[in-house]
Amino acid sequence: MRLPTLQLALRPGILELRWGHPDPALLPASALARAAARTLADQPGDSLGYGHPAGPGALLEWLMARLGQTDGRAPAPDEILITGGISLGLELVLAACAGPGDVVLVESPTYHLAPRIMRDRALQLVAVPADEQGLNVTALAEIAHALRRAGRVARALYLVPTFNNPTGRTLSGERRAALVSLAAEEGLLIIEDDVYRELAYDAPAAPSLWSLAPPGAVARLGAFSKTLAPGLRLGWLTAGRGLVTRLVEGGLLDSGGGINHFTAMVVGALCTAGDFDPHVASLRTALRERRDALLAALDQHLPPGCVVERPGGGFFVWVQLPPGLDSAALLRQAEASGVSYLPGATFHTDPRGAGALRLAFSLYPPPALAEAARRLGAALGI
Amino acid sequence: MRLPTLQLALRPGILELRWGHPDPALLPASALARAAARTLADQPGDSLGYGHPAGPGALLEWLMARLGQTDGRAPAPDEILITGGISLGLELVLAACAGPGDVVLVESPTYHLAPRIMRDRALQLVAVPADEQGLNVTALAEIAHALRRAGRVARALYLVPTFNNPTGRTLSGERRAALVSLAAEEGLLIIEDDVYRELAYDAPAAPSLWSLAPPGAVARLGAFSKTLAPGLRLGWLTAGRGLVTRLVEGGLLDSGGGINHFTAMVVGALCTAGDFDPHVASLRTALRERRDALLAALDQHLPPGCVVERPGGGFFVWVQLPPGLDSAALLRQAEASGVSYLPGATFHTDPRGAGALRLAFSLYPPPALAEAARRLGAALGI
Repeated sequence: MRLPTLQLALRPGILELRWGHPDPALLPASALARAAARTLADQPGDSLGYGHPAGPGALLEWLMARLGQTDGRAPAPDEILITGGISLGLELVLAACAGPGDVVLVESPTYHLAPRIMRDRALQLVAVPADEQGLNVTALAEIAHALRRAGRVARALYLVPTFNNPTGRTLSGERRAALVSLAAEEGLLIIEDDVYRELAYDAPAAPSLWSLAPPGAVARLGAFSKTLAPGLRLGWLTAGRGLVTRLVEGGLLDSGGGINHFTAMVVGALCTAGDFDPHVASLRTALRERRDALLAALDQHLPPGCVVERPGGGFFVWVQLPPGLDSAALLRQAEASGVSYLPGATFHTDPRGAGALRLAFSLYPPPALAEAARRLGAALGI
Repeated sequence: MRLPTLQLALRPGILELRWGHPDPALLPASALARAAARTLADQPGDSLGYGHPAGPGALLEWLMARLGQTDGRAPAPDEILITGGISLGLELVLAACAGPGDVVLVESPTYHLAPRIMRDRALQLVAVPADEQGLNVTALAEIAHALRRAGRVARALYLVPTFNNPTGRTLSGERRAALVSLAAEEGLLIIEDDVYRELAYDAPAAPSLWSLAPPGAVARLGAFSKTLAPGLRLGWLTAGRGLVTRLVEGGLLDSGGGINHFTAMVVGALCTAGDFDPHVASLRTALRERRDALLAALDQHLPPGCVVERPGGGFFVWVQLPPGLDSAALLRQAEASGVSYLPGATFHTDPRGAGALRLAFSLYPPPALAEAARRLGAALGI
């Protein structure tokens, strides 16, 4: 018997651009090993006991300072808590704000596994369209009003406004302002998935919705999954004092002593030793090269009529196919040519996206990405 | 600013027997440091990528073999998954089996933070009494039938049948058989908190309810919190294939790549290196000495009329006060004498337990426990 270790499953001969997973070569294993050794040697009891429910102080303090540099404002101590990554953070926020049958609005296209978490909670999803500028806030207002007229209230809106998965798009500044203002008026909780903030390749990431909004209007989910490693299952939540206090004082965090204390101590040691910044700087450089290599090769190899968007950060390139082509139908052909992707329909909760596809540039080095683009061009050109 | 690292808060001059926390001196920091170093050096990509949703194979396989030795039977690969400790395991099981307003039965007395997790989910709790033999199964049958007559159905029963928290009691073999048979008849899911199984001081722990029951009747929660360290936030769930599959294939574990992958890899390395067994053997010896030291000192110092139960395992000694005394009312006096405990009422969801108290022998070495018993005797003898 050999049960699997990882989720990733690679098929021989296929460049698997469908996986938004990190290249193992870019993971900070040495820095984490140093941090784990130091923490366990210097603070054995503190590393291994029941943790402070909001997370260990050293990591919280480092995060507060970091967000003060990379975002519009730093959270206060009672506005932040440590989570077990974006997925578990989303689960906690949904449990606190919505029950079975409640309506939750979801940006479309969106990170495809978030709606699955919502559906597992029996929430009713309503799609809100997005375009090149990100979420369409005018459409959101219309949808919220239509729901009200039908006697329904949307409990929350989930979106990835900064270096979106799957599109790489960033919500414009004008729309950010309009969105936080609308949400405050409507009493709508914005759940902001902000996992790509640190992976900005051209200019610093825009201020988060959380930093722009009145207190309590936004729950922002962050994580170390893209900057350090996904297997750490470590993230954070910044939100209004009410929600943070409710979670920190709830039974789950009291009983467990925080969500992921040991890993939080290890990562806290890495960060306070000054190892986070240089690692992320070199990761950013490596991923920028990969993005640029993929974009250049797509420009060279894709047939006319394809539209490739240039992402300012994150892991993904979004490709619009020429009118009439269906990315799901073309996938078999692409895989026969030795390249995979995720069809655009995967990222929609409504029946759209057939004409688009997502390519991840996180897993492979530039030469493999160039070859993948060549194979994709060959498959689409058939 | 200095935010806390741990949950534990000690007050000078007080022996804090209210905390069921481990003595930092008994934590396996060196073995974990070796395991972390080895995993990150030998399997950097496997340690840090998105994990297999059920948990990393090496740890699952080790656990399956271990449970084959320490329990009535070993789980099959599709009957087990890795969790983030008992609390998060309970949260996942509750989310899968019960919604707001549903009735959940709770052993009384019970681990006091489990009902808080349930109340946070807006579940309706109904207490089922227990005595020296553990849960009263006859009373359970009557309660289940009364609920049915009232048109309600209990979704689940939560209990700690082996080395119970707070009482240290173990459910008798006869009652185990009656309970699993009743649960199967009633279609009641038993949630078995089995966290103390390895900490057996006199004889091996009884076979779990999970191992005795027909498939699907029991979800058993296990964890490394008591054997290795609570801060790891690592545990497991053995249950019927249906529930395990539903969780493993759900959005949360798919999106996150398991619950706590890196820690699971580190602990898997510790276990497969053969470090678990000797550590737990020496921990068992240390805790047995502590239990015996506390029991001997209580026997010497408590006033007549107190009844002290001898636990066969776990962390706790349950003391019944002489009739008429109220443990909550006496706490101030005890703390003034330099010893703390948790009053018995803490562990009841109904208004009982005033005449009992829980002492934890996990945090202090034998001399401190003897002194704590002396102080308690002095406070009660006033």
